[in-house]
Amino acid sequence: MARINEHYLKLKAGYLFPEIARRVKAFQEQNPKARLIRLGIGDVVLPLAPAVVRAMQEACEEMASEEGFHGYGPERGYEFLSSAIAKHDYASRGVEIKTSEIFISDGSKCDSGNIQELFALSSKVAVADPVYPVYVDTNVMAGRTGEILKSGHYEGIVYLSATQANHFKPSPPEEKVDVVYLCSPNNPTGSVLTKEELQTWVHWAKENDAVILYDAAYEAFIQDPNLPHSIYEIEGAKEVAIEFRSFSKTAGFTGTRCAFTVVPEEVLGKTQGGEKVSLNQLWNRRQSTKFNGVSYVIQKAAAACYSALGQEQIQANIKYYMENAGLIREGLASMGLEVFGGEHAPYIWAKTPKGLGSWDFFDELLNKYQVVGTPGAGFGPSGEGYFRLSAFGKKEKVMEAIERIKKG
Amino acid sequence: MARINEHYLKLKAGYLFPEIARRVKAFQEQNPKARLIRLGIGDVVLPLAPAVVRAMQEACEEMASEEGFHGYGPERGYEFLSSAIAKHDYASRGVEIKTSEIFISDGSKCDSGNIQELFALSSKVAVADPVYPVYVDTNVMAGRTGEILKSGHYEGIVYLSATQANHFKPSPPEEKVDVVYLCSPNNPTGSVLTKEELQTWVHWAKENDAVILYDAAYEAFIQDPNLPHSIYEIEGAKEVAIEFRSFSKTAGFTGTRCAFTVVPEEVLGKTQGGEKVSLNQLWNRRQSTKFNGVSYVIQKAAAACYSALGQEQIQANIKYYMENAGLIREGLASMGLEVFGGEHAPYIWAKTPKGLGSWDFFDELLNKYQVVGTPGAGFGPSGEGYFRLSAFGKKEKVMEAIERIKKG
Repeated sequence: MARINEHYLKLKAGYLFPEIARRVKAFQEQNPKARLIRLGIGDVVLPLAPAVVRAMQEACEEMASEEGFHGYGPERGYEFLSSAIAKHDYASRGVEIKTSEIFISDGSKCDSGNIQELFALSSKVAVADPVYPVYVDTNVMAGRTGEILKSGHYEGIVYLSATQANHFKPSPPEEKVDVVYLCSPNNPTGSVLTKEELQTWVHWAKENDAVILYDAAYEAFIQDPNLPHSIYEIEGAKEVAIEFRSFSKTAGFTGTRCAFTVVPEEVLGKTQGGEKVSLNQLWNRRQSTKFNGVSYVIQKAAAACYSALGQEQIQANIKYYMENAGLIREGLASMGLEVFGGEHAPYIWAKTPKGLGSWDFFDELLNKYQVVGTPGAGFGPSGEGYFRLSAFGKKEKVMEAIERIKKG
Repeated sequence: MARINEHYLKLKAGYLFPEIARRVKAFQEQNPKARLIRLGIGDVVLPLAPAVVRAMQEACEEMASEEGFHGYGPERGYEFLSSAIAKHDYASRGVEIKTSEIFISDGSKCDSGNIQELFALSSKVAVADPVYPVYVDTNVMAGRTGEILKSGHYEGIVYLSATQANHFKPSPPEEKVDVVYLCSPNNPTGSVLTKEELQTWVHWAKENDAVILYDAAYEAFIQDPNLPHSIYEIEGAKEVAIEFRSFSKTAGFTGTRCAFTVVPEEVLGKTQGGEKVSLNQLWNRRQSTKFNGVSYVIQKAAAACYSALGQEQIQANIKYYMENAGLIREGLASMGLEVFGGEHAPYIWAKTPKGLGSWDFFDELLNKYQVVGTPGAGFGPSGEGYFRLSAFGKKEKVMEAIERIKKG
């Protein structure tokens, strides 16, 4: 038998969502009539915007004719999409991004998972705790860590504790770090970085020769016009940051699959000998070797998100989810819980009552109210004592969940 | 600056297709009126089958309604597609494959590039020479090789020379190898493995504790009913082989993106300590961490390929391309060239005349007939002195190319 990549075996076996599924199943078997309300995972429920569906159907029509048929597309994605992104997502906020800096892909999970390939195995990686597990797991699989410790941390990763004390926004590390993952608006805590806070990070990255991997998958949920949607709104960020964006939550593309990653020409890495290397070129090489582009019809669908009609329809969906977030915040507060996030993010992060553990509170919500959430501890040790609810449900379900909780 | 993964810098800079593009551009600048006929790359030209387009449009319609909307799909892909694959591609040939062994993806390039992650970095890898470059490049990027040698081979990889003497089908290596990539029908040589030859490989893999990575992306072009379409038609193959399949060439999905990989439950790897590990579970972990599934509408489109109408329309397209292959074979033979492949594969592999080098013949075809092909040397040192033409063009173009060549 061939020898395997044993780093995979370091991954924690009892992963979050399977354990949730196990407990929910057990509850359902004992309570077959219970009507569960699921506010756990981050999947959307509203249908695709009509403008998006129409564009996708027209693209299907094109693919049916010899003249309109599209085979392999450009490796970075179609210009019609990347130029729309450059205009609407960046130029509109005073940021100049070239289409050659935009790489269309099938998901931010893939991109934020694959990006670590560009860096030396010896790179020191920092993540927040709690954290979106993909950042950590992909580094474990690559062999950039040791075993998991009793604390729940992997040996070799620098964890930046996101706590109530720092408003769930840790400061840059004191120790030497090469690569840091930031997520704002944050999954799972719903916190959001201000321009000043991001400026501190960019400054730190420059001072410390570090690269920031900036996950802005939830930027569309930002309500305050003064908050940055892109790290490139910060001066100097193009020299130190790679940004991930997605249509998944913005436009309900979780099952449609389109995203993009921006790798500015200015952001560099270096060899052991000190030679500077363009990360844009490395990522281009990575994508053109291990990826073959996003379906033409899906890129057409994504481009329709930027039409006037598309924007209007998509914004209506975001408003819908943010109203849910408000209802959830209010409902949890009425239980006497301390509530965070949910103001510029689709996630609400709540402190469990009576010092309950995350999983104990999960069980309480499930047993008492038949509401399924996500225990904070599932996102990292510092998530213990917290709980995440998602605003992506149907409004009537969210309201019913809140009613149940309020009735007590 | 963060340190980069320096293995990327080992990749050959002067890559095949950019060099072709450079020469074609130079020719066009000097001959602005020349009407080029491109038979170089493996991209299809016929539109998607009507049955496929219709299924895709219906799926778009579903995505527009609350009831029909699909968010994140099952991680391995939808059961409606994997069960169709299990039935039509495998059960129909007497092979039992479970849906839990099928992983739907967005491309065989991605899967055959990513699969090496499952194996130890110290694994010894063998490829044919000439070879589809992705197998080699992804191992280089992972750090499984040394530098490129003057021969054009990478240090540390075992190359199995595919020559006229062995009918472009090399035998298993004598030395110890852990992982071997086989491609049949072959890109670029168009050769195809018989059951007996595959049996030899399976037997070798069992005897030598090796894993076979079997790329069957072109199986739909096989004409002889006695030739195997899947390696699992060979007894014992499930214990040693992973198989890649694609809708790209079979159903014209190069720009639509859908493929799948079969990882049987029986195929195992081992740890340094000798513990057996399921490669199916490792791949599942890889895909569920770094991938997020194929678009629902695209999976619906792929499933339509298996309907009676879809099959009929797709087979008509394959027939069209195979007629092109016949024309190209005949045309090259009329030039006095020795011609291989193109009988069970969409690629024709020809020996260059008068001992010309691959690139010299490329220039001759371009300058004399305005026909663009692919120099064999671009696929590896043993491809020197050979030339690849693709059968994926429009018939009238193929015929015109042959006319030009015949006229001399």
